[in-house]
Amino acid sequence: MNVSAIEWSDKGLRLLDQRRLPVEETWLTLEHSDQVANAIRDMVVRGAPAIGITAAYGVVLAARDALGASGAGGIEALRDAMQRLGESRPTAVNLRWALQRMGAILDANTSDPIAALLQEARTIHDNDIKANKCMGTLGAELIESGQSVLTHCNTGALATGGYGTALGVIRSAWACGKLAQVYAGETRPWLQGARLTAWELVKESIPVKLIVEGAAAHLMRCGHVHWVIVGADRIAANGDVANKIGTYQLALAARAHDIGFMVVAPCSTIDMNTPDGESIPIEQREPAEILQLGATTVAAHGADAWNPAFDITPAAFVDAIVTENGVVKGPDSAKIAALMRSTDNR
Amino acid sequence: MNVSAIEWSDKGLRLLDQRRLPVEETWLTLEHSDQVANAIRDMVVRGAPAIGITAAYGVVLAARDALGASGAGGIEALRDAMQRLGESRPTAVNLRWALQRMGAILDANTSDPIAALLQEARTIHDNDIKANKCMGTLGAELIESGQSVLTHCNTGALATGGYGTALGVIRSAWACGKLAQVYAGETRPWLQGARLTAWELVKESIPVKLIVEGAAAHLMRCGHVHWVIVGADRIAANGDVANKIGTYQLALAARAHDIGFMVVAPCSTIDMNTPDGESIPIEQREPAEILQLGATTVAAHGADAWNPAFDITPAAFVDAIVTENGVVKGPDSAKIAALMRSTDNR
Repeated sequence: MNVSAIEWSDKGLRLLDQRRLPVEETWLTLEHSDQVANAIRDMVVRGAPAIGITAAYGVVLAARDALGASGAGGIEALRDAMQRLGESRPTAVNLRWALQRMGAILDANTSDPIAALLQEARTIHDNDIKANKCMGTLGAELIESGQSVLTHCNTGALATGGYGTALGVIRSAWACGKLAQVYAGETRPWLQGARLTAWELVKESIPVKLIVEGAAAHLMRCGHVHWVIVGADRIAANGDVANKIGTYQLALAARAHDIGFMVVAPCSTIDMNTPDGESIPIEQREPAEILQLGATTVAAHGADAWNPAFDITPAAFVDAIVTENGVVKGPDSAKIAALMRSTDNR
Repeated sequence: MNVSAIEWSDKGLRLLDQRRLPVEETWLTLEHSDQVANAIRDMVVRGAPAIGITAAYGVVLAARDALGASGAGGIEALRDAMQRLGESRPTAVNLRWALQRMGAILDANTSDPIAALLQEARTIHDNDIKANKCMGTLGAELIESGQSVLTHCNTGALATGGYGTALGVIRSAWACGKLAQVYAGETRPWLQGARLTAWELVKESIPVKLIVEGAAAHLMRCGHVHWVIVGADRIAANGDVANKIGTYQLALAARAHDIGFMVVAPCSTIDMNTPDGESIPIEQREPAEILQLGATTVAAHGADAWNPAFDITPAAFVDAIVTENGVVKGPDSAKIAALMRSTDNR
């Protein structure tokens, strides 16, 4: 709960290098927005909400560079930098959402745009933590006392402004004394489950057992889990969910075993401009992420790999989408639209 | 096809150390049966048919030690050694099957038991290769031209006497010009897919793309594969299949996408004394296999892991079991019994 991976200082944006966890806790200080775009692309920071927050601070750095010099091309250079931030990763919509909010501040033509942009980035960051705690409470209400859960990838304090989405629900359920055991998929190829989720849970003495992704259905068949709880990188208007590769088959297996499947994400992850899962761009990453472990090649020389970073879980396989503004059970277009209308009216 | 991982020489049993592949091709020479039991337990050799063959040669080594000295306790020492071989791994029934065949030779009280045991081990080894080629032909007939397949773990020449079970079908289908693409799950935690299956396929220029296990359902949803083809460590009398952890969720995902699910195994893998999957002992292995990568700890210090080496796929999810004595489509107790009766009559 005290873990944070994103910090703003006058010197710049400080990011905990998540690629090195849990072996090393190394902080990077970024002073320019292109460094931020690279950090997002190279997975120094990951997790849809954390990417959005990071990009927002990246706009502040871009503004300092572009508007501080106050040459004629300042605003144009800033817009270009925002464009590059927006292109750093394609799937998580929180990135685009945060940039749109920052763009609206810029459009408002305040007298001190850099200060206004920093204020907005801080607001995005603070609101994310508040949203996480709210989701934690709402999601934990769905869990019954003594149940065990399976989660995937890392959706904790490291993936967000703090606390977490799916892992926030797990934290809240644990705090209520409801949880018997957390299982976490190790989440190949980046091992976010083994490296990050286990690290967060161990820090808080929440009992965690790692499994290889292949063991999830067997775990369910053995009756060891009652809920699968995951985050999301983008939720389409019809309730289809893009999330870390491996999520979809957890949903298939959960349905086959009559186990609940819960998606936890702030409303900034819901994209009403994306009609369905088929319209969500799925990032394909380098084969080397699978063929190598760190610097060591494990696969036979000459082998290729197919390495999508995300997959789509159709809404029909989702039992509940938990947001800070309410829980949508059995999501569909009408229920998602109603949630977003109530969100806009807040 | 020329790859072999088990060789008999007068000096002893030579095993290719599969833990070091594909980085190093190291051969171990074992002169005593307890070394063989350790090699099976420590996964120098793996794959149900290969384990059976290895254990058979292990009995020859035990007989040389126990009967060569020809003390009074010779036969008893040999039986003890066979017991230890039988306890080296619990799930694959080929191990027990091979030891029973060797035991029958011993019971026959031949004048030169060591020579007779060696002859039987060689026969088991040779017959396995013949069975593989036969299964290759039968399984390939189920595949249509231009189709792509997904396999799991390693079921090739390295896992058998040579050629392979599921990978034998893939070899045969490729030789017929039917296959467009092979996908292979990397198979955590031991990475047999990345290290061994890719190595075998690359050697024969069969196009292989590795995936993380989490990507399998997404691969199917994208329409990229038409068959899932796997081996088996034990098939119960009702057609339930024990195989490498991760197999069951491939079967669930295949069914959800109307994709064929083929199990390829010699009749020695079918255990009529095991009524169903629930009766198959599932080996639990050390958490360290998941928590570490080689000598490096990747998971957070203090995290635990749940590490079953196998899972059970109910017969209802299997479209075809391919054996050397015929193909059983939609397996159930009656069909399996009929296959085994025809096998006994051969």
